[in-house]
Amino acid sequence: MTKKWVYLARNGKEEYAKILGHDPSLAEMKILFGGKGAGLVEMTAAGAPVPPSFTITTEACVEYMKAGDFPEGMWDQAIEALRDIEAQTGKKLGDPQNPLLVSVRSGARQSMPGMMDTVLNLGLNDETRAALAKLTGNEWFSYDAYRRFITMFSDIVMNYSRMHFEEKLEALKQKEGVSSDPEVSLEGMKALVEEYKAMYKEHFGEDFPTDPYKQLDLAIKAVFDSWNGERAIAYRNHEGIPHEWGTAVNICTMVFGNMGNDSATGVAFSRDPNTGKHDYLYGEFLVNAQGEDVVAGIRTPQQISLQGSRDWAAQRGISEEERATQYPSLEELMPEVYQEFLDIVKMLERHYRDMQDMEFTIERGKLWMLQTRVGKRTAAAHVRVAVDLAEEGIITKEEAVMRVAPENVDLLMRPSFDPQAPKNKVAKGLNASPGAAVGVAVFDAKRAQEMAQEGVPVILVRPETSPDDVPGMLVSKGVLTQKGGATSHAAVVARGNNLPCVAGCEMISVDTALRQFTVGSTKVQEGDTISIDGFTGEVFVGAVPLIDAEYEKQESLIKLLSWADEIRTLGVRTNADYPKDARRAVVFGAEGIGLCRTEHMFFDERARDAVVRMILAETQEERDAALAEMLPIQEQDFEGIFEAMDGKPVIMRLIDPPMHEFLPSAHDLTKEIYDLKLKILTGTNDFEKLDELRAELREKEHLLEIVESMWEVNPMMGLRGCRAGIMYKGLTEMQTRAYFQAACRCAKRGIDVHPEVMIPLVGHVNELKLERGKLEKVAYQVMEEEGIEVPAIFGTMIEVPRAALTAQEIAQHAQFFSFGTNDLTQMTFGYSRDDAEGKFLLQYVERGILPVNPFQSLDQVGVGRLVDMCVKEGKAANPDLEIGICGEHGGDPDSIDFCHRVGLDYVSCSPYRVPVARLAAAQAAIRNRK
Amino acid sequence: MTKKWVYLARNGKEEYAKILGHDPSLAEMKILFGGKGAGLVEMTAAGAPVPPSFTITTEACVEYMKAGDFPEGMWDQAIEALRDIEAQTGKKLGDPQNPLLVSVRSGARQSMPGMMDTVLNLGLNDETRAALAKLTGNEWFSYDAYRRFITMFSDIVMNYSRMHFEEKLEALKQKEGVSSDPEVSLEGMKALVEEYKAMYKEHFGEDFPTDPYKQLDLAIKAVFDSWNGERAIAYRNHEGIPHEWGTAVNICTMVFGNMGNDSATGVAFSRDPNTGKHDYLYGEFLVNAQGEDVVAGIRTPQQISLQGSRDWAAQRGISEEERATQYPSLEELMPEVYQEFLDIVKMLERHYRDMQDMEFTIERGKLWMLQTRVGKRTAAAHVRVAVDLAEEGIITKEEAVMRVAPENVDLLMRPSFDPQAPKNKVAKGLNASPGAAVGVAVFDAKRAQEMAQEGVPVILVRPETSPDDVPGMLVSKGVLTQKGGATSHAAVVARGNNLPCVAGCEMISVDTALRQFTVGSTKVQEGDTISIDGFTGEVFVGAVPLIDAEYEKQESLIKLLSWADEIRTLGVRTNADYPKDARRAVVFGAEGIGLCRTEHMFFDERARDAVVRMILAETQEERDAALAEMLPIQEQDFEGIFEAMDGKPVIMRLIDPPMHEFLPSAHDLTKEIYDLKLKILTGTNDFEKLDELRAELREKEHLLEIVESMWEVNPMMGLRGCRAGIMYKGLTEMQTRAYFQAACRCAKRGIDVHPEVMIPLVGHVNELKLERGKLEKVAYQVMEEEGIEVPAIFGTMIEVPRAALTAQEIAQHAQFFSFGTNDLTQMTFGYSRDDAEGKFLLQYVERGILPVNPFQSLDQVGVGRLVDMCVKEGKAANPDLEIGICGEHGGDPDSIDFCHRVGLDYVSCSPYRVPVARLAAAQAAIRNRK
Repeated sequence: MTKKWVYLARNGKEEYAKILGHDPSLAEMKILFGGKGAGLVEMTAAGAPVPPSFTITTEACVEYMKAGDFPEGMWDQAIEALRDIEAQTGKKLGDPQNPLLVSVRSGARQSMPGMMDTVLNLGLNDETRAALAKLTGNEWFSYDAYRRFITMFSDIVMNYSRMHFEEKLEALKQKEGVSSDPEVSLEGMKALVEEYKAMYKEHFGEDFPTDPYKQLDLAIKAVFDSWNGERAIAYRNHEGIPHEWGTAVNICTMVFGNMGNDSATGVAFSRDPNTGKHDYLYGEFLVNAQGEDVVAGIRTPQQISLQGSRDWAAQRGISEEERATQYPSLEELMPEVYQEFLDIVKMLERHYRDMQDMEFTIERGKLWMLQTRVGKRTAAAHVRVAVDLAEEGIITKEEAVMRVAPENVDLLMRPSFDPQAPKNKVAKGLNASPGAAVGVAVFDAKRAQEMAQEGVPVILVRPETSPDDVPGMLVSKGVLTQKGGATSHAAVVARGNNLPCVAGCEMISVDTALRQFTVGSTKVQEGDTISIDGFTGEVFVGAVPLIDAEYEKQESLIKLLSWADEIRTLGVRTNADYPKDARRAVVFGAEGIGLCRTEHMFFDERARDAVVRMILAETQEERDAALAEMLPIQEQDFEGIFEAMDGKPVIMRLIDPPMHEFLPSAHDLTKEIYDLKLKILTGTNDFEKLDELRAELREKEHLLEIVESMWEVNPMMGLRGCRAGIMYKGLTEMQTRAYFQAACRCAKRGIDVHPEVMIPLVGHVNELKLERGKLEKVAYQVMEEEGIEVPAIFGTMIEVPRAALTAQEIAQHAQFFSFGTNDLTQMTFGYSRDDAEGKFLLQYVERGILPVNPFQSLDQVGVGRLVDMCVKEGKAANPDLEIGICGEHGGDPDSIDFCHRVGLDYVSCSPYRVPVARLAAAQAAIRNRK
Repeated sequence: MTKKWVYLARNGKEEYAKILGHDPSLAEMKILFGGKGAGLVEMTAAGAPVPPSFTITTEACVEYMKAGDFPEGMWDQAIEALRDIEAQTGKKLGDPQNPLLVSVRSGARQSMPGMMDTVLNLGLNDETRAALAKLTGNEWFSYDAYRRFITMFSDIVMNYSRMHFEEKLEALKQKEGVSSDPEVSLEGMKALVEEYKAMYKEHFGEDFPTDPYKQLDLAIKAVFDSWNGERAIAYRNHEGIPHEWGTAVNICTMVFGNMGNDSATGVAFSRDPNTGKHDYLYGEFLVNAQGEDVVAGIRTPQQISLQGSRDWAAQRGISEEERATQYPSLEELMPEVYQEFLDIVKMLERHYRDMQDMEFTIERGKLWMLQTRVGKRTAAAHVRVAVDLAEEGIITKEEAVMRVAPENVDLLMRPSFDPQAPKNKVAKGLNASPGAAVGVAVFDAKRAQEMAQEGVPVILVRPETSPDDVPGMLVSKGVLTQKGGATSHAAVVARGNNLPCVAGCEMISVDTALRQFTVGSTKVQEGDTISIDGFTGEVFVGAVPLIDAEYEKQESLIKLLSWADEIRTLGVRTNADYPKDARRAVVFGAEGIGLCRTEHMFFDERARDAVVRMILAETQEERDAALAEMLPIQEQDFEGIFEAMDGKPVIMRLIDPPMHEFLPSAHDLTKEIYDLKLKILTGTNDFEKLDELRAELREKEHLLEIVESMWEVNPMMGLRGCRAGIMYKGLTEMQTRAYFQAACRCAKRGIDVHPEVMIPLVGHVNELKLERGKLEKVAYQVMEEEGIEVPAIFGTMIEVPRAALTAQEIAQHAQFFSFGTNDLTQMTFGYSRDDAEGKFLLQYVERGILPVNPFQSLDQVGVGRLVDMCVKEGKAANPDLEIGICGEHGGDPDSIDFCHRVGLDYVSCSPYRVPVARLAAAQAAIRNRK
């Protein structure tokens, strides 16, 4: 018995199952049938009315390559399969009345550019063309199809470039004085076909093959040969695809939607790709048309479902009468076909277990499904479809959780432009990085930095960006570029930094010298406010109002995250410094505060003076007095946070930055001093004024002296964190007192408080012992004073490599660890984040020296090794130790997966990332199961 | 049979051996006899003529504490032992003709303040006093001894404070109008004894015990009771000494050196404690004197050996005649005793296997050894004694190597003041940190920094120092303080930083306001040059010339180090940037260059301009042109180094610091710009000059712009090391080209070159791969151009924690690793060395938060763990990998021991530390053997 080289889509799966002895998986089918063939077989097996087809296996290709000819029996099996198709369709290859036309396509196990693509309408010759004209009632179409077939066949199968044929068409159009193909006259088309045939004969020395069997034979061989084409080999070498795989060949019946008013063609989505809703079938179609007519946009397509049609009309202000006559739905026109369609869609969704994006053709009242694939959709639709499919029982809840990329949740959490607001749209570019931004247009990075420093929201507008622009980009609200695509520098940096970006907006013309851009007659100058929409690529002049994402109204998202919560084992907390952030985070599902930074309280207007006095104090009395003034302000903020987090833990981190950050810089002071000197020398004859200036000068000079004495070469590694706590007597005691006074007073009001104190920058266990002892004493003293007990938990941030390396020691004196992976990454790499990103880091990522920016996604190899060691040894030394992460990585899905794997108890991230983290944590739990 | 509670020194060791069944070790003896008792037993067993003594065991004390009385048989055994002593001495306790006097001392297993110390002259009463007067021919002495005994006994044994007795003595002196005890009249002394006895009777209601046995009984009980004294218990609690140990009691014959001209007393060293020589017996004595007379300095002591005496006289310009009559040696006075002494000394050295420091008394022609201990000595003597003892076969070479502390070798390598040079010595303080320094006196730390920056050598002079002074101390050549002892801030910081320091120089009076110090009529003002000698504590006005340590002449040291070289397995290389340093290091035994920093070449006057142009270059052409100018200068230096290191490896480290270090600071430029502006506004009417000023202003403003764009918040973690090499195209290629051109050209001249290139600051394997590939290409290209092959080795510094954490990856692309533990310590701790030491680190060490300054001695727990991991994983991944250390820790003995333990191949340190490292490496090998 000869080997089976050819499979019908109709029963290919069964047949192959017989040979295998089990139901083939999709992967197994792809090996034998190629990707495209497997799709046809699968869709047919699923019960969809697919135009009959058969596939010649990859094994046949391999044999062909060895022998230089079809393997024994292959051609006969192909003809046998063709007969089956003919029987299914009632058409016959080459039949002058009812001819079967087919497409021939290559299809390897893995999609592979460089191989032969598609030959359509194979089977056409002068006779079958005439039949096609009759059947479609469209002579022009039949000639057009014929001349296309000759072009494709010559080019793809016979390797005689299509350029020669295109030239003739162009000449014809010039001759007829028309600009588009459809305008060419019928006579012109007729003559063109004759010319093409003559060219073919001239080139090859023989007639264009009119025998469809010869056409088929040559086409199959061309597919096989294309496997060893130059481009295909180069592609495989590059991608590491084995050269011995070979390709399959798919022969598929052509169907036509332009065979009269009982024919049609269109595209459909099983659910709304914008919202995910599935109250009716979404999509559009054209009666008596080909697929390309839908794309061309010459005729207005109609809606498939009646409700969809009515909605569509309502949006456009079209009356029901006009709609029903001009743009009736498929549901109205062909109610039976529509009903069948609905059933098929339902069946396909159940089969493929996801929302489908389908192409269909109705040929003389018969519905054919040409293609179905998982449909692209918006972030909102992603979530809704996953949840709905799970609720419909098509997929499990866990699958729903795995289906939604965390980035989609992130997008749903971002503010966007109010769709109701009036907008002055002036241009549209590439939606390179999502998000909406409003700011003042600025045309160079340095200016952006200056203005940002003054608190002005800016949007950096550049012809294109380079690494020099990065510092300016990072302080901007958004970026707009004239040139460059989705992988341009601007796009990559913006996405990497969650910065809205519209790139490649070629409609605008940026003039950096004049500091302006123009679009048409509109001119936008430096200082003018613009708005950019990174979701859509739109650019507006003026400020478009932003609206919050309204998490509470996103029912599907809330449901999906509730399932994620059931699955995940990692806790999710938030980094929040203000009561309003804390409240928001709780709404988003935060289970506590993993990091409450206290330095912002030092910048508070009310505390400002006291802070400066505290730092400049020359005696402990002065310092204590200043600290006493700061205390009630800190306490007040803490109370607000405890109120928001009723029942949940709150980790307060003691003051971390170096104290000189709260003083003016030496550089600024020097400038001010010289400016004063200049003024004194030149500015005035008013002696009273002069005295004032001189007094000011003396004061500034004194301040400069102090600032200079506090100056640090590398402040990141200087006197900060617990080091400052140890060296500035009374400072952390004050914070601890404020914190526990707030906790006790809230507790007295019935609030369930869980105060935890985090000691930052510990590198040696003795620092922790010293600080913890000191602060614990304060905590218990306050409780005694207040007459109430609250739980007091003390732990440390792990952000210094040495802390991770000596976790075993440190864990014995800490009740919790929290990884500060920002600083840990800085020190483990020796990268100052303030400097590195602009100076070399982004170039490192671009040039592939680093696989990823380690400040965005945790470096699992290096920094991660420290984290892993620390968790293992910390928990071994203190089994009660709770370990979390509060660096920015706590909101990054890859990093969250890592945190799950190494056994952290929770992640903590910014409020808006909490939903992302909940989902990512659940996915990590599923992914790493067993 | 009752237990043995009492042992005679004469045969204690034998007796105890019988009971134990083996020869007792010193440790075993200390358990039973206490430390002091064991010493007496041991010295007696060694054959030294020790005044007869016996010891009551610690076991007796334990029993006494339980029962509240002497254990059964103890007193009888003590009396029996006493009889033995009496037999040995021919004296009898209480004998009115020839009375035995004894001392009674406590002595626990471990020396313990808070316990009873000593009662001397026990056995005195009116009768025996008279005998003593007769025997010594000194009535006054007998009364003085008697009144002292009454005082001691009352105070120590009876707990009746000596204060009461001292008061009476003071009153007596006042009455007689004298100021010192020896001036009191004989009559006064007699009356005082009577008064003391009366006081005793008054206080206790009974006579002072005249019965020597009663005295002995009470004294022994007092010793036992003192074990449970309040201070003794507190001390034991603090030190963790078990309370159940108990103390022994030592009863020892008193001998007297003041019994006539055939009696004497003195101290002796078996070798010269200054030089270690042993051509004769060193030491001095007084005829007919007590030990305290030698100390008091009233009479000029005589030398023991004739040669010593002659040398002594020669130094003082004393004629041989005068010497022989006034200050004859013991060798001349008592030749037989002297000969016996020589034999005893030889015997004791062999017994104790080290140079001895001895106290002796000659009583009526009989030599008694009172004490012998290992003698204190200078660094030079340490080395010489160890080497000589080994050569004499007393100790092994390995013991000799272990005997010398590496710090002693360090001291021998330091320059010192020329002893021949004239000096203007003005004061003497504490020799707080060794070394000699010459510099300009400066009176505050800030001024010290300013002047040091201008290249002026300064000596910081302060009343005392505080942490604020540290930055100023670190840039000074030496430190002088008026107040504070050996553990004062100044002393600790200076020693820690190898900075010569004279502390607590109370003779000077420092006035910081006037910026001067005075000593007597001498006034030293800011700017005056002074010299300080940290070896001696001397302070000189003016510059004293320094002389090098003359390593080549230190024969014992050279021999010791040659033994060390035979033992050590760690290689020792040097960090040297200049040919002259390299040459010096080779003399000191360096086996190669572990680190040749190349940045100094960038500061070279000849390269200065080109360096600035290279950095400021706006095009690659400009940069390449500047680099081309720098190349020959680099090459020239490299040739000098290859010449010096003929046959030895040389590791060249590519440029490491951030480029902006080679430009003026933004701060300075800002000041200069404002100064120019002020000048332009106010300074001149000369228009040509104005134009010049304006041009200069524009230039500075342009430079400032560039400097500001290069500015880094944390330069330590910024664009430096291989990052700069990657970002500045052509820079490291130029260095590599210069290096291999030098290597090839030297090779052509017959020099055996071993060039190795070290790529700094690698944190990710890709950085190394990229740089190594680039530079290797240059190296081979140069060899081809030069037509000669030299070995080209490429490796990396391990100084970023991530490099250590990913050693397994990095080792596959490196031929060597070299730990840059300075930076590795900075990043692992998160300490910026520039900031930390002054701002908190030294306080951390002072307060015990850190056990040691991790920049001085490697933090073995944290940083060391990274080193250990890195070595293990690096060698596992690449067994040929050579691993060294080139941070400052490479010269620190503790760190060297660690390096040996973790399996490094070599250490590299500054030239002057090479001998230290050779010794420390040998000690590490011995210490960690088996």
